[in-house]
Amino acid sequence: MKAWQLENFGLNNLKQIEIDKPKINKNQILVKVNAVSLNYRDTAIVEGIYTPDLLQFPFIPISDASGEVVEIGSNVTKFKKGDRVTSHMFTTWLEGKPKGDEPLNALGATVNGGLSEYMVLNENATVFSPENYTDIQASTLPVAAFVVWFSLVEYGNIKAGDRVLVQGTGGVSIFAIQIASALGAEVITTSSSDEKLEKAKELGASKVINYKAHPDWEKEVQKLTNGKGVEHIVEVVGGSSIAKSIEALAFQGNIYVIGFLENMEAEVNLFSLLAKQARIQGINVGHHRAFEDFNKALDQINIDPVIDTVYSFDQAKEAYEHQMKGAFGKIVIDFNK
Amino acid sequence: MKAWQLENFGLNNLKQIEIDKPKINKNQILVKVNAVSLNYRDTAIVEGIYTPDLLQFPFIPISDASGEVVEIGSNVTKFKKGDRVTSHMFTTWLEGKPKGDEPLNALGATVNGGLSEYMVLNENATVFSPENYTDIQASTLPVAAFVVWFSLVEYGNIKAGDRVLVQGTGGVSIFAIQIASALGAEVITTSSSDEKLEKAKELGASKVINYKAHPDWEKEVQKLTNGKGVEHIVEVVGGSSIAKSIEALAFQGNIYVIGFLENMEAEVNLFSLLAKQARIQGINVGHHRAFEDFNKALDQINIDPVIDTVYSFDQAKEAYEHQMKGAFGKIVIDFNK
Amino acid sequence: MKAWQLENFGLNNLKQIEIDKPKINKNQILVKVNAVSLNYRDTAIVEGIYTPDLLQFPFIPISDASGEVVEIGSNVTKFKKGDRVTSHMFTTWLEGKPKGDEPLNALGATVNGGLSEYMVLNENATVFSPENYTDIQASTLPVAAFVVWFSLVEYGNIKAGDRVLVQGTGGVSIFAIQIASALGAEVITTSSSDEKLEKAKELGASKVINYKAHPDWEKEVQKLTNGKGVEHIVEVVGGSSIAKSIEALAFQGNIYVIGFLENMEAEVNLFSLLAKQARIQGINVGHHRAFEDFNKALDQINIDPVIDTVYSFDQAKEAYEHQMKGAFGKIVIDFNK
Amino acid sequence: MKAWQLENFGLNNLKQIEIDKPKINKNQILVKVNAVSLNYRDTAIVEGIYTPDLLQFPFIPISDASGEVVEIGSNVTKFKKGDRVTSHMFTTWLEGKPKGDEPLNALGATVNGGLSEYMVLNENATVFSPENYTDIQASTLPVAAFVVWFSLVEYGNIKAGDRVLVQGTGGVSIFAIQIASALGAEVITTSSSDEKLEKAKELGASKVINYKAHPDWEKEVQKLTNGKGVEHIVEVVGGSSIAKSIEALAFQGNIYVIGFLENMEAEVNLFSLLAKQARIQGINVGHHRAFEDFNKALDQINIDPVIDTVYSFDQAKEAYEHQMKGAFGKIVIDFNK
Repeated sequence: MKAWQLENFGLNNLKQIEIDKPKINKNQILVKVNAVSLNYRDTAIVEGIYTPDLLQFPFIPISDASGEVVEIGSNVTKFKKGDRVTSHMFTTWLEGKPKGDEPLNALGATVNGGLSEYMVLNENATVFSPENYTDIQASTLPVAAFVVWFSLVEYGNIKAGDRVLVQGTGGVSIFAIQIASALGAEVITTSSSDEKLEKAKELGASKVINYKAHPDWEKEVQKLTNGKGVEHIVEVVGGSSIAKSIEALAFQGNIYVIGFLENMEAEVNLFSLLAKQARIQGINVGHHRAFEDFNKALDQINIDPVIDTVYSFDQAKEAYEHQMKGAFGKIVIDFNK
Repeated sequence: MKAWQLENFGLNNLKQIEIDKPKINKNQILVKVNAVSLNYRDTAIVEGIYTPDLLQFPFIPISDASGEVVEIGSNVTKFKKGDRVTSHMFTTWLEGKPKGDEPLNALGATVNGGLSEYMVLNENATVFSPENYTDIQASTLPVAAFVVWFSLVEYGNIKAGDRVLVQGTGGVSIFAIQIASALGAEVITTSSSDEKLEKAKELGASKVINYKAHPDWEKEVQKLTNGKGVEHIVEVVGGSSIAKSIEALAFQGNIYVIGFLENMEAEVNLFSLLAKQARIQGINVGHHRAFEDFNKALDQINIDPVIDTVYSFDQAKEAYEHQMKGAFGKIVIDFNK
Repeated sequence: MKAWQLENFGLNNLKQIEIDKPKINKNQILVKVNAVSLNYRDTAIVEGIYTPDLLQFPFIPISDASGEVVEIGSNVTKFKKGDRVTSHMFTTWLEGKPKGDEPLNALGATVNGGLSEYMVLNENATVFSPENYTDIQASTLPVAAFVVWFSLVEYGNIKAGDRVLVQGTGGVSIFAIQIASALGAEVITTSSSDEKLEKAKELGASKVINYKAHPDWEKEVQKLTNGKGVEHIVEVVGGSSIAKSIEALAFQGNIYVIGFLENMEAEVNLFSLLAKQARIQGINVGHHRAFEDFNKALDQINIDPVIDTVYSFDQAKEAYEHQMKGAFGKIVIDFNK
Repeated sequence: MKAWQLENFGLNNLKQIEIDKPKINKNQILVKVNAVSLNYRDTAIVEGIYTPDLLQFPFIPISDASGEVVEIGSNVTKFKKGDRVTSHMFTTWLEGKPKGDEPLNALGATVNGGLSEYMVLNENATVFSPENYTDIQASTLPVAAFVVWFSLVEYGNIKAGDRVLVQGTGGVSIFAIQIASALGAEVITTSSSDEKLEKAKELGASKVINYKAHPDWEKEVQKLTNGKGVEHIVEVVGGSSIAKSIEALAFQGNIYVIGFLENMEAEVNLFSLLAKQARIQGINVGHHRAFEDFNKALDQINIDPVIDTVYSFDQAKEAYEHQMKGAFGKIVIDFNK
């Protein structure tokens, strides 16, 4: 089969090769991959700035993949040939806390990912793709969309009517606007671009703040909420912005620190934190049961993933390059293009 | 002011009178009532089959009322004159558990209700009416709609993608279809009428079961859910139907026993209950904080209350009679008609 | 190895045999059993009144076993040879809900149990025995003690200071007294025997009610709690007693219906249920993660399992007969006796 | 009556005076104060470093007071004359979130506190003193002890068997050792003094770390927990210590930032936070319902408050001075001394 392998750090070490189709064990399934999507994490792995010590070259990168089951192990009861499935990144995190003595194993990092014609998945690390989604759409979910669901639903116990602040319009933030508004929340979005804020409104944001016009955006948030603040903040900036986020919160509000932030060193004024009785919650994707819940929910709520550009399998490097320079929505590789 | 007073049990003892406008204390507001809606509870009070021992004649009946603030007590900070507000039935149940030593005080029963031109409400037992609702619409919420929210959100912690079974198309059940589907749940509705099931679909039900065609409707529920069952049942039948409800549940599912049921004596097979690890939860409306949450949510999610007939203030007895014989949707009294 | 096999229903079909030591797969461990304890469930299985349709003869009965790891599968990382371990009854219920499409597999029923010199356990269906417990003590935990923890902690979210009603002094109830009081609850116990009530006090009960002297024990509970009622009831009676239990509850209290009750048909007055906003929760043991939590907790809190009689391996039938006629505390079989 | 009033910032502006006994309104009680205890907060108020803008001179300081009810308002049903009661600091925070539009009102700051012979309390801001406590003991609870309960129980949902790290042996930390171990947790305490660590063990700590001997105490925590880390940290240091706290946590562990810390500016590495999926929770005492729960719990669990020195009413300034220079345990003023 055809596959892209990362042989060392650096995009020039991503090589297309021909290798044998992988074999599955009794608890695994073999999936014919139809589409994968990229995340910042994937580019960080290639560049050696994400868990470099855990990686063993060569390996097949990219965690987010959708396709069709073509073979099942003898113990597998959940899936059958022909089922449309999507990968779950943390292959051994089923529910609750991961098993105490095991590290989290991750597709496209410590375990081979989806950038190959066929891919091995554990029965317990796979979900059914949402019924009305194409594989291209389903491939956008496992990291960027699911982390929003995991934050708001599993940690945040979000209720319709809650207020959610979304920073910017990156891949996670676009999904945050869509998911939070589909769950009945009132969404406030910040950006430096009025054009992007217009798009944010089309995607479900009720209120928007151009932080160039309002550098004190946290005060603007308080103003837009009649001094009540927001219950949830999907934090993707970090650094000194955390202090502003605390000011924008409602009493007992939640800041979800999600994945890679622009600035991973935050200065937090603990007095503000305790006066607000605020919570800062670190989040790194989520567990399999919640991803199953999310995919089941997508059969009921309407989320139309925003896709910037679709590349072909042979254009994998162009896809990475596009991801690195930024996009409005997801970068996808369509294996049938 | 004009008011209807109940002087003794029986609808013939409901009398329209002229009395002085009531006075408020420091923590209360005076509301000019624009609309009230009726519930089975209101007719049961008139007929003396609901908490008759707690009632002291005469009193003004009906718990659900919407209108405009015309006067505020000196301690009141939450409301100002002109605010559009709706009543909360349990006037002393603010949050969590009611205060241990206090009975629950209820509008239109132990405390004067809304069937008068002006009405006294505690600041802590009043909510802002949803912004986009008329007073007629808002008056339908405090009992029939809110009890569904309280069940599914406060007790059931419902998530988008959950499955909800709604029995029949009475007042509570119609709201259950609308609220559950607006929260992203998959709704299954039962009825003996195909016509009503069609309406249920229009209101948001994904799947329907005519229990005349399928007396074993619990098996039909399992079939429609691929053998998984439903996470939530809004139980309005009771009696031997509870046993069927348990069979229709998913593992660890919830049955919410809501208000007056057709049959208040249930025979429960405890073996089925424990094999399913099921929960039966008694529910009697809810507390003020959750009603505030619900009204806030209604600014974000679209619920268009189904109203069967609107009567004028002078037609109050006709409204009661209509409520007693049954309706599809709510019976409302519009004070400005 | 020596083993007891059940060849058909009836204690006379329990036969001691010699068979080969079982083999383990990659994810399993082999345990040298040192002690097993009996539950009502074990006698019900022998008598064919518990899940008879799921059983396939012959099989080795009894779910609760403690011993020492003597062999581990190649994938096993959690345990090593020499570790002291205890079995977890539901071998495929790891956490949250069991996997949707799998039935619950249970040791000593659909899977071979512990009444043999060696026993195969899944790595994920085994826990470390509490450090300070003998194997005899640890073998009493998996059903009778754990179901109390699962009820009060996982479902009931018990807090120190809560009030717990325990009915009688059977195996589960004795553990309920000990566990609830160790968790800081105030325990009220009922019995028809003053002598047993004295023992209940020694085990941690704060207050006791002889229900022969007080047939209206639910009123006595209200009196002993200043009219507040109890937050939790460990229900082991069922039938018409459920109605009394509801009366004994605090507002929003919980009744845990645990395992086999004296009377599995309950008549529930739903009006009482909803006026109290009470919950009836069916419970059937629990999942592996919670059993791990419980064993970890036993290293910190002092629970000294009450053991009525210890039999030798060859006396297995006498142990069953004792269990069938009732005991104060657990019946254990010590393989080294 | 005799009272101490703060007339301006600075301890020299704390003056003993004679004033009229205060009057109560319908929802209040008058309490004859028997004992008050001091917290760091009280000294910070005197020194003008805690909410100085909200204060209006003169006022009676100190939030934590216990005594006896001598008069009740006409609406008061919960208390009667002669009841032994303790104050709750946030007088308008009853449960859940404080009312949206109200600031938190605090005894001894925006509302007169307990340093006077008689004190006015709202019925809803008072709890019954634990039955077996003297007033001296009960007066130690409202801030330093309760904040630990609120953190571990309300936010942390602590279970027996959880691991708790307590930093140092200040007033809050001593209570944290006692409360966490009484709730069945395994407690690890750090200190620079072996002598204090010995006392910590006597109070319930299972394991101790001298951070002078082990400057990398976070690694020592991991070692003492077999690499699992602790589920809860009662954080009283702040600053760069937060980074170490994150390293000491278990996966999905909780850091409670409680009240005044040594260093209120924290530098948090967000990558560590998200890899651990850790939570940092700001906490500032708690609400009335939880304080009632805590006092009820103290009737069941044994916590013997550690009291450093008891002063007389006339020695109030000496008490403040002692509190300012530090103590092992609480500083109390006994009005009957």
